Amino acid sequence: MSNSTKIAVIGGGSWATAIVKMLSENLESVGWYMRSVYAIEHIKRNKHNPNYLSSAELNPKQLILSSDINEIVAAYDILIFAIPSAFLKTELEKLTVSLENKTIFSAIKGIVPETGLIVGEHFQQVYNVPLENIGVISGPCHAEEVAMERLSYLTIACQDPAKAKILSKAIAGRYIKTKISDDIVGTEYAAMLKNIYAIAAGIAHGLGYGDNFQAVLMSNAIREMKRYIKKVHRMKRNINNSAYLGDLLVTGYSTFSRNRMFGNMIGKGYTVKSAMMEMSMVAEGYYAVKSAYEIKQKTGTRTPIIDAVYAVLYGGKEAKDQFEKLTNKMN
Amino acid sequence: MSNSTKIAVIGGGSWATAIVKMLSENLESVGWYMRSVYAIEHIKRNKHNPNYLSSAELNPKQLILSSDINEIVAAYDILIFAIPSAFLKTELEKLTVSLENKTIFSAIKGIVPETGLIVGEHFQQVYNVPLENIGVISGPCHAEEVAMERLSYLTIACQDPAKAKILSKAIAGRYIKTKISDDIVGTEYAAMLKNIYAIAAGIAHGLGYGDNFQAVLMSNAIREMKRYIKKVHRMKRNINNSAYLGDLLVTGYSTFSRNRMFGNMIGKGYTVKSAMMEMSMVAEGYYAVKSAYEIKQKTGTRTPIIDAVYAVLYGGKEAKDQFEKLTNKMN
Repeated sequence: MSNSTKIAVIGGGSWATAIVKMLSENLESVGWYMRSVYAIEHIKRNKHNPNYLSSAELNPKQLILSSDINEIVAAYDILIFAIPSAFLKTELEKLTVSLENKTIFSAIKGIVPETGLIVGEHFQQVYNVPLENIGVISGPCHAEEVAMERLSYLTIACQDPAKAKILSKAIAGRYIKTKISDDIVGTEYAAMLKNIYAIAAGIAHGLGYGDNFQAVLMSNAIREMKRYIKKVHRMKRNINNSAYLGDLLVTGYSTFSRNRMFGNMIGKGYTVKSAMMEMSMVAEGYYAVKSAYEIKQKTGTRTPIIDAVYAVLYGGKEAKDQFEKLTNKMN
Repeated sequence: MSNSTKIAVIGGGSWATAIVKMLSENLESVGWYMRSVYAIEHIKRNKHNPNYLSSAELNPKQLILSSDINEIVAAYDILIFAIPSAFLKTELEKLTVSLENKTIFSAIKGIVPETGLIVGEHFQQVYNVPLENIGVISGPCHAEEVAMERLSYLTIACQDPAKAKILSKAIAGRYIKTKISDDIVGTEYAAMLKNIYAIAAGIAHGLGYGDNFQAVLMSNAIREMKRYIKKVHRMKRNINNSAYLGDLLVTGYSTFSRNRMFGNMIGKGYTVKSAMMEMSMVAEGYYAVKSAYEIKQKTGTRTPIIDAVYAVLYGGKEAKDQFEKLTNKMN
């Protein structure tokens, strides 16, 4: 890896920490912005993030840590954003430094709630970042397994293959295999939609549906995802590639997924509000389903699963009824 | 349901018991052959199968039970075979009654080890049953969840849609939804191949690979399955339908799957022989991979997952090495 590749990570959560760990395996130095001054001090002293993915050992000598987003953004060419989509707008509003000449990779799996845009579109439309400077990092990848150094495959999508290759090389290693793709829009939509399907899987589980149903749900979900993405960005893609189907499965089958957990509570009878309070973490799919539903109304895609989740989370409908109806629309 | 629909189930295992339970919901009477006289007496007296799926309550008044396969075959028009593929040949050799005018549905997910044929082909080639009289019942469906009356979706495949519809109606009910298909060959190959992929998932788990890898494995498996089936029987099919992808997922993600368990033991270092002895049950995928490997050599399909499982189970190769190689062939 060239020493001149200057990459920084924006965010202090589990996925941000996992990406810092991957980059640290290859780069001499990694920039890292997070809000918490306390966490920064803890990392410097104790070599791990106190709040997230604390089992991942980090080498503070390799890290340029700062709680000032402008300091990091000014000093680095390639910025990897890994913060919950719900906080993106607030973080970006702190910026005094321009993003126009930066290469931006989104590791955010969601939609910006305020604009209803996927993250790449948000950077492009609101911050004038040219499309060829925008990329996406996608799983299937639980951060926890990166901490354990278990083999994981990531897809780096960017319209400019040269940029995808740079990041791909910076991230690949002993336990990370990477693949590049030019389907940035499809990859981002897949990453966003899978959280909705994970909520659906959680609701179904909470309602008492079993593994047979879960398999049918995932089989219907990938077909729905294919239809959905085809409508928003038509191009040749194999929906069964890891960045689409793999990402859906790792989340939909994970009992640790926040989205699945959130859905499970809804299925068990919690109200949306109490489930959110109980979890004290944001389930990306909660925001995603609102935007996804609005977009699908424009494109006219048939999306029974999204419709059911939307009706439960935003329409005040009973999960039990909605899912009973849904079972008749699947096959 | 017409009272004249005469359907019998051949086999005394979990899946056979689950099918009898489904049929009993709709038919006044169901024929049922199983070898064990003891099990038959137990069912008559205690209303459940003593050995398999004992939680499923059965109504002996609806059942025409017999330990004589000829008695059942002679008296019924539609026969559903649900015995392990490894025992099929022996059972069929007991027949003195002809199968030529029968409609045969296979609920066997495997390959007949002695002939290397999928079950439908075996009936056609060895017993002269015309192709239009042969069908397949496919999942995703764990028998255990049928016992619990959890919603499950089954696909009934037959070249003759009228026959598929008859069985479909006889099986569908409160907790079973059915779908008909004309892709009997593809459905049967999918049901057979998924057991090999479940063994692969088990081996990977036994070797210490995690959920991220499992998702990538399943994503590669469905693409491999698509290539494989396309070569043996080219027709228009959506490989993401429940009978293909759903069936793969329910088995590949099930920790109760015999095939996955068998693979897991191999991954943990058991020899093939000791894993088979320890389990005291047949893992269908063990036989399937041998035939699948031979067929793919003829068709020339690229099947890195089948190749790896074959090398471990039949080539005496180390699982660790084979799977390390496999990780480089997946994406």
